[in-house]
Amino acid sequence: MKKATAEFLGTFILVFFGVGSAVLMGSHIGMQGIAIAFGLSIVAAAYGLGAISGAHLNPAVSLGVLLAGRMSAAEFLTYVVAQIFGAIVGAFAIYVIATGKADYAIATNGLGQNGFGLGYNGGYSMGAALVFETVATFLFVTVILGVTGAGAPAGFAGLAIGLTLTGIHLVGIDVTGVSVNPARSIGPALFVGGTALAQLWLFIVAPLVGGALAGIAHRAGLTSAEA
Amino acid sequence: MKKATAEFLGTFILVFFGVGSAVLMGSHIGMQGIAIAFGLSIVAAAYGLGAISGAHLNPAVSLGVLLAGRMSAAEFLTYVVAQIFGAIVGAFAIYVIATGKADYAIATNGLGQNGFGLGYNGGYSMGAALVFETVATFLFVTVILGVTGAGAPAGFAGLAIGLTLTGIHLVGIDVTGVSVNPARSIGPALFVGGTALAQLWLFIVAPLVGGALAGIAHRAGLTSAEA
Amino acid sequence: MKKATAEFLGTFILVFFGVGSAVLMGSHIGMQGIAIAFGLSIVAAAYGLGAISGAHLNPAVSLGVLLAGRMSAAEFLTYVVAQIFGAIVGAFAIYVIATGKADYAIATNGLGQNGFGLGYNGGYSMGAALVFETVATFLFVTVILGVTGAGAPAGFAGLAIGLTLTGIHLVGIDVTGVSVNPARSIGPALFVGGTALAQLWLFIVAPLVGGALAGIAHRAGLTSAEA
Amino acid sequence: MKKATAEFLGTFILVFFGVGSAVLMGSHIGMQGIAIAFGLSIVAAAYGLGAISGAHLNPAVSLGVLLAGRMSAAEFLTYVVAQIFGAIVGAFAIYVIATGKADYAIATNGLGQNGFGLGYNGGYSMGAALVFETVATFLFVTVILGVTGAGAPAGFAGLAIGLTLTGIHLVGIDVTGVSVNPARSIGPALFVGGTALAQLWLFIVAPLVGGALAGIAHRAGLTSAEA
Repeated sequence: MKKATAEFLGTFILVFFGVGSAVLMGSHIGMQGIAIAFGLSIVAAAYGLGAISGAHLNPAVSLGVLLAGRMSAAEFLTYVVAQIFGAIVGAFAIYVIATGKADYAIATNGLGQNGFGLGYNGGYSMGAALVFETVATFLFVTVILGVTGAGAPAGFAGLAIGLTLTGIHLVGIDVTGVSVNPARSIGPALFVGGTALAQLWLFIVAPLVGGALAGIAHRAGLTSAEA
Repeated sequence: MKKATAEFLGTFILVFFGVGSAVLMGSHIGMQGIAIAFGLSIVAAAYGLGAISGAHLNPAVSLGVLLAGRMSAAEFLTYVVAQIFGAIVGAFAIYVIATGKADYAIATNGLGQNGFGLGYNGGYSMGAALVFETVATFLFVTVILGVTGAGAPAGFAGLAIGLTLTGIHLVGIDVTGVSVNPARSIGPALFVGGTALAQLWLFIVAPLVGGALAGIAHRAGLTSAEA
Repeated sequence: MKKATAEFLGTFILVFFGVGSAVLMGSHIGMQGIAIAFGLSIVAAAYGLGAISGAHLNPAVSLGVLLAGRMSAAEFLTYVVAQIFGAIVGAFAIYVIATGKADYAIATNGLGQNGFGLGYNGGYSMGAALVFETVATFLFVTVILGVTGAGAPAGFAGLAIGLTLTGIHLVGIDVTGVSVNPARSIGPALFVGGTALAQLWLFIVAPLVGGALAGIAHRAGLTSAEA
Repeated sequence: MKKATAEFLGTFILVFFGVGSAVLMGSHIGMQGIAIAFGLSIVAAAYGLGAISGAHLNPAVSLGVLLAGRMSAAEFLTYVVAQIFGAIVGAFAIYVIATGKADYAIATNGLGQNGFGLGYNGGYSMGAALVFETVATFLFVTVILGVTGAGAPAGFAGLAIGLTLTGIHLVGIDVTGVSVNPARSIGPALFVGGTALAQLWLFIVAPLVGGALAGIAHRAGLTSAEA
């Protein structure tokens, strides 16, 4: 139960910082500032709550950890439910604050949802979105499994993972807004509806495929320091 | 006495870096630069002075630490007085430097004070300000109690806390200027007066409520790694 | 074999983050954001894969390590081949994503290639490019050999090296786009062709000279903490 | 001798990154990017060379260390000479690269020199410059003495000091360009001459006063964790 609370609260922090910076501050801090906010949410949750649950905050990460043989299926399900719930409540908190501004409307301003195609950020194709999300999540989960595995220096995981997420956002915000995390995408999409909901499948499928491949490659020893 | 000196000097650094960057450099570095400056002030004070006092620098943090059962009421009072005094002297130092520019006037340029409502940054409502400050302080103090508690990797607290404060600023500068710290708000407000002083109550009440809730939740074991 | 895989994947990350941020996000995040992305790619690869191969990701680094007497010639060759291969595949991945945007054309938008002279960024001369790349690589490899050598604090190498690479990019993107790494330059140049290919020699020669000088100076004890 | 080499090379890195970013990239990365570059130069030098000399890179720091009773007067003199020499050669290297751009002229573009008064950045008064440089150097050297003293977590000094320098730059670039380091100011001023040379005294006196006060306060136990 304590682990579920930590995953809930950690994913809340991820959405509160990341989606919050995009919705409330995007016009002031730009895509660079949003990229930093997403990364620092991991730093906050990993050091503040990581001792409880490991701070996955992300079903694609938990899937990679599961397939790498480091957690049970039952625990996986608990984590994923807590993560999705945390993301939804986090998106709601940002929505509540955003409505405190007179000219905010979710239909026109959105809520930091992911997307692709004409009308979303740079207008990248669905194929580009699929490639980016799958490759980026594979790299992200590979880094996570490596830095929390044998041979990695103790204590640095939270910083390394957070800064990796910032790096990924510096590559892909114009492409998909960057998910690499189904929970982070589900939260805003439920409130925004419409296209965000119609495109949500991609931000569930591609991250899970990328995370699963990373878990399998790690287990097979391709990306693991273990002998 | 040494602890009081460290809290005084540390909160001076917080205001000197954070409020100073807003007042002297805001038009050059934007809200992203100000967010970074606030976070780095914590890094500076935590690693430079943390061995003496723990570098709370913030009455809401000290309240959370008190309610988590980690400091005495007498020490709490000493810390808070030193923090408020440090913030006032820090704001005065920035005021002295700012007046070295011919076209600076506190009535028009302000002194990095917090606020809400029409006329302050994004013009967010009082309700949005209350929600943001309470939630953000709850998250901030939860991270602090976690990273300085059982199971967290040694040495990383200063970085994790500072980067968390940067993340919070990347979400909320347009909403309230971000307080999450009554001392940080009191310092500038005393010099600016007017609306800043009239709205100061919110930046005392909301952070203290958020910090208290974090302390209670931690003590209850909800957000603590201890068994 | 495992080491070759790690060098391949690590250099893929370097190009995916660094070149990717320039190609896909350059107009949004500017040279500062690109500088951060390059540095964070090192953080990701060093903490995620460093326990396997040491995460050189760069023939100039491997040459310095070889000349400092810390790796064999056979291993050096394996590393370099894997690095170049990783950079080529990384550049291809970014190319695939970039073509998902309707108005992208490699002939006009490039692929994050390095260069010098009129028509490339600030239009700096070949001499300036040679000086910058040689000096910057010398400093970069000197820092790497120092932070992975005797007396340096354990665990910090990945952060220190990544942040050093960000610092170097903050000085030189307008001059050469910053290589300090032949593999990073070879990847995009093969796809872009033309001037990028014609100028590629400089981004092989200058980094290798800088890296070799750093390795020799370190071995001679000038920049090493060993007695 | 090895220590002198390390101080020379480290201060070269400080000027190469910091002054270099201002001269070559200032119009692209702004004052925020310059602030980051100065801080990361410390990270590079501290982790790459700190095991040899401690990486002071700054006469004001060495003076504080001397007065805190942590180095001898003879070593102090060696350090300061090496630092000034490193800063001069670093400024020369940036000058050489800068002249590779056709429209660069030192008389109009400068070389990252410090200054104050009308015609320099924000046009702040000499009094404001004196207050800023003295207070900022006092804080900077206090943090350095604290994080390298008793009770501070091992290994974090380089990061903490570098990020503190970034924070200081985020407050003061518009005021004085930020010195807090006589060597950093002497390097460019020798090449620029004129006003830069005429105002150089302030950037020698104020940092030395601030550093000396920090050393004395630390020795007296006011800012030190030692009993």
